[in-house]
Amino acid sequence: MTKFTRGNLVSQREVYQGRIIDLVVDDIEVNGFETVREVVRHPGGVVVLAEVEPDRIPFVRQHRYPLNKDLLELPAGKLDSGEPPEISAARELEEETGYQARSIRHICSFYSSPGFCDELLHFYYTDDVSKSEMQTEIDEEIELEFYSLDESLAMIDSGEILDGKTITAILWLDRNRRKLE
Amino acid sequence: MTKFTRGNLVSQREVYQGRIIDLVVDDIEVNGFETVREVVRHPGGVVVLAEVEPDRIPFVRQHRYPLNKDLLELPAGKLDSGEPPEISAARELEEETGYQARSIRHICSFYSSPGFCDELLHFYYTDDVSKSEMQTEIDEEIELEFYSLDESLAMIDSGEILDGKTITAILWLDRNRRKLE
Repeated sequence: MTKFTRGNLVSQREVYQGRIIDLVVDDIEVNGFETVREVVRHPGGVVVLAEVEPDRIPFVRQHRYPLNKDLLELPAGKLDSGEPPEISAARELEEETGYQARSIRHICSFYSSPGFCDELLHFYYTDDVSKSEMQTEIDEEIELEFYSLDESLAMIDSGEILDGKTITAILWLDRNRRKLE
Repeated sequence: MTKFTRGNLVSQREVYQGRIIDLVVDDIEVNGFETVREVVRHPGGVVVLAEVEPDRIPFVRQHRYPLNKDLLELPAGKLDSGEPPEISAARELEEETGYQARSIRHICSFYSSPGFCDELLHFYYTDDVSKSEMQTEIDEEIELEFYSLDESLAMIDSGEILDGKTITAILWLDRNRRKLE
């Protein structure tokens, strides 16, 4: 149940079914007016903040095609079909950094862009890892870098980190660290 | 200039041009393999954290069609064509909350979902406002609510706040407040 009017569906077009996303465009009627709702469907994803040693956090630098830019981000990826987010988080961490999580903790989940997209991101934290092997996919070219929390915060302030989920996760760790002090 | 391979464009399809987003699908060749890049183009947006009185932050609750859920978010919206983000931030704040910013400060900008979308969100803060009028758009039904920083943080922990940009902004305010103490 929602409190607000969703509107009445007038017609629906399945515009695109793709590799990562689908696009559906709905004509709806809300409060007597006709309008359009563009919906990008996404399987959801994970982002992982790992402290592989005390205050040593792995990041990946990679090319982001939609931006034509290289971005520095925490390890992340989309959910494989039917895969529980916790398994996905451990898998992405191991593939992208070569560290295997012995245990991993769900911190929170959030929508990346709820105005037009249903992508839900699940944020995980671990400081309980062992060394394994990096296994990047064939069309995935990434570089592994390590930073402390203070270095990460400085890169948010300077604009070097431009990825929303990464900023959220680093600010969470900062808050959590301060709470424990 | 990017450090990593962008790949070579083999063919491009403009799949959809819409009200808020466009969708372009590129076939590319990377390191000898053919693959697909799905790109959602978005004009970018703003999110505004305002303290309209000390420790009193306006939020908007509204229906998010792609999720079929009502979400609690900070005032936000997309950039109008050619509009500087700072003007857009002040406009969205006034339209959605009825508070006019006398001055407003850019905190940081971040990509909401860089894997498939070029949406860049600009985050603004103000504690310098005067009372004005709410002016919501015809198909926009929203409810204004006010919370303190501590209440906002508790709603992140409880999962009541599920919007990524809102979580980022609240965690930033918490960090900034602690830095000033």
